[in-house]
Amino acid sequence: MSTDVVRIGLLGKGTVGGAFHDLVAERADTIAEAAGRRPEIAAVLRRSEGEFDPILEDCEIIVELIGGTDPARDYVLRALRAGRHVVTANKQLIAQFGDELFEAAREAGVQLRFEAAVAGVVPVIRVIQESLAAIEITKVFGIVNGTTNFILSEMASTGASYADALHRAQDLGYAEADPTDDVDGADAAAKMAILARLAFGAPVALADVSYQGITEIQPDDIAYAKELGLSLKLLGVAERRDGGISVRVFPCFLYPGHPLAPVEGPFNAVMVEAPTITEITMSGPGAGGVETASAVLGDVVSILSGRAPVHHARESLEIVRDVNSSFYLHLEVADRPGVLARIAEVLGRNEVSVRSVVQRGLGDDARLVMVMHEGAESRFFRALDEIATLEFLRAQPRAIRVIEEEFV
Amino acid sequence: MSTDVVRIGLLGKGTVGGAFHDLVAERADTIAEAAGRRPEIAAVLRRSEGEFDPILEDCEIIVELIGGTDPARDYVLRALRAGRHVVTANKQLIAQFGDELFEAAREAGVQLRFEAAVAGVVPVIRVIQESLAAIEITKVFGIVNGTTNFILSEMASTGASYADALHRAQDLGYAEADPTDDVDGADAAAKMAILARLAFGAPVALADVSYQGITEIQPDDIAYAKELGLSLKLLGVAERRDGGISVRVFPCFLYPGHPLAPVEGPFNAVMVEAPTITEITMSGPGAGGVETASAVLGDVVSILSGRAPVHHARESLEIVRDVNSSFYLHLEVADRPGVLARIAEVLGRNEVSVRSVVQRGLGDDARLVMVMHEGAESRFFRALDEIATLEFLRAQPRAIRVIEEEFV
Repeated sequence: MSTDVVRIGLLGKGTVGGAFHDLVAERADTIAEAAGRRPEIAAVLRRSEGEFDPILEDCEIIVELIGGTDPARDYVLRALRAGRHVVTANKQLIAQFGDELFEAAREAGVQLRFEAAVAGVVPVIRVIQESLAAIEITKVFGIVNGTTNFILSEMASTGASYADALHRAQDLGYAEADPTDDVDGADAAAKMAILARLAFGAPVALADVSYQGITEIQPDDIAYAKELGLSLKLLGVAERRDGGISVRVFPCFLYPGHPLAPVEGPFNAVMVEAPTITEITMSGPGAGGVETASAVLGDVVSILSGRAPVHHARESLEIVRDVNSSFYLHLEVADRPGVLARIAEVLGRNEVSVRSVVQRGLGDDARLVMVMHEGAESRFFRALDEIATLEFLRAQPRAIRVIEEEFV
Repeated sequence: MSTDVVRIGLLGKGTVGGAFHDLVAERADTIAEAAGRRPEIAAVLRRSEGEFDPILEDCEIIVELIGGTDPARDYVLRALRAGRHVVTANKQLIAQFGDELFEAAREAGVQLRFEAAVAGVVPVIRVIQESLAAIEITKVFGIVNGTTNFILSEMASTGASYADALHRAQDLGYAEADPTDDVDGADAAAKMAILARLAFGAPVALADVSYQGITEIQPDDIAYAKELGLSLKLLGVAERRDGGISVRVFPCFLYPGHPLAPVEGPFNAVMVEAPTITEITMSGPGAGGVETASAVLGDVVSILSGRAPVHHARESLEIVRDVNSSFYLHLEVADRPGVLARIAEVLGRNEVSVRSVVQRGLGDDARLVMVMHEGAESRFFRALDEIATLEFLRAQPRAIRVIEEEFV
């Protein structure tokens, strides 16, 4: 008996596309045995070679690995509308055009899968969409950008500057020649928009995600924090707040014992919280050609097995912007009497409560490193704006969030 | 338009059954919206109340939460053969009768799901069966018994004896009145048999799993190891070895930096390794009524969504028993010249290589704490048997495995 062949059209043959091509050839027998049908790459479209129309005509599943949104959006939409299942690793595509694409898949009765779009081979999409489909998730958060996690790990372990750590990441292939999307937080923001959409069943646009990157992190902030046992991560956080949701990306100090504190190098890790599950943590390589290709292949196998992920269609949720946070604040000030009192007055008047202060001399100047108790961010930033205008300040104040939650 | 109702027959209404009952009522609307059908518990069978036949007749999905294998095996087999989907949290049932049950499900064309049987709400079963269905997994290992992990954490943090830590676990509800299955490793062995079966696509019987529990762990072993930064865990390990597989459960020291080292208390954590995924780690609560019920409900939703997990059907793999390990060895000996030389001679003759030695006085006696380099277990145990007969030994030698792998 010959096994039925499933023809796959592959769009893009870069690092991930090439690895996917090889992996399909290598694993076709196992998949045929397990899923009853043998996948085969019937056609490949590259930027420089091939035409989309005959591939669409000829293939049952389209795997989109060209990246970017143009022409990926057009190809994927046309594939879905023509009744083809689609697998993509394209986070920008899903984050920016998710509504339109999900709608097209629903209307055509086909599957759109995108496990590799967030956290590479770490199966966060499947777990949120399938294992936790019936659970009211309260919070999804974690480290979803491997480039910045590598850079921060490198700065912490070697004392390197941001620029030097970035160069090392580029040398090792963990950062692109133009690293802007990674280091300014935009990449993580797109991934958090996708996770928030799935976790809360609400449309979340890229514009709903506030983000901040790591380009302004100074080695001495990391060094001060290290003395307190704190480690710095670029965190994405999506959570229910005051009847709405908040989705943010920001660099952040973690206390020791936090499950994300030991995640080092280019790894990703995502935590999901809900009263009925306490918390689940998933971690692993967030990128890499063969790892990402493995995630794409997992999606293909799911399609062959006839499974469809559950799409919630619930009401939209308001985006809450003023959340509570705790902050680390680094100030360089003139070393003279009354300075600390003046700063404390500004903080107190804005109802920002100080948890600890360390003061160090620095020639005629001094450094004040303070950690605040948790409070409304709007109040802290109002105090910060005021502090920035004080005449005895010797440099721009630097503020970084701190997570002080207790974990099980 | 009224939503189609799916009638569920619930077998067992203990802690997990009760939590599942409540959770279905609470989440029925969301599930109906997402999956298109509304789950409803139509009938409940308890040991003291109800009959199975009318429930089987009346329900489309049977959820088995009575535990044990008799009458659970009979009920589940009859349900599958009658064309009913089955969800169970029963690890003994799957570990002991998996072949028979999978065969029955396949013949009837129905689903048998059991996410909650291993690591509670941590979705290891789904990830191995679905996300990684096309991947050649080389190793699955982790902490799959929360009771023993709690006891070992308690011993390490308070210096308590095994007996005292067990009592505390019982007081907190983490250990049962009769804790035998947990503390002797049998519970973890059943779970590892299930994980090995799914990861390697080979039938693995309970008898294929060698296991050792934690009842003989001494507080001073933990204390010595703590000085070296090591932490003690009860590990389950299933891996490909020499063309076959090895499935084992044993207490084991982990070096700091190992991803499983920080897993404390009643939590579970499972790691999966393969060349194409590097490693994925998943952790979360391994037990708890509502957490386990959430895992069961996730399975029910998957059935409603029409998805079926992939079952591999590959050849059987030989069970390899003599693997390589590194060991910690604790000896109480008479404090006199020539003792260390004699022990070193026995180890050397058996080709066991010593990595580090610490000797401490103890009145007329001395303690020797040694850590070995990795080598064949058979050689180490031959040396150990010989050492145990040496006339200057003052107590039974104590040996515990050590994991010294480097991680990314």
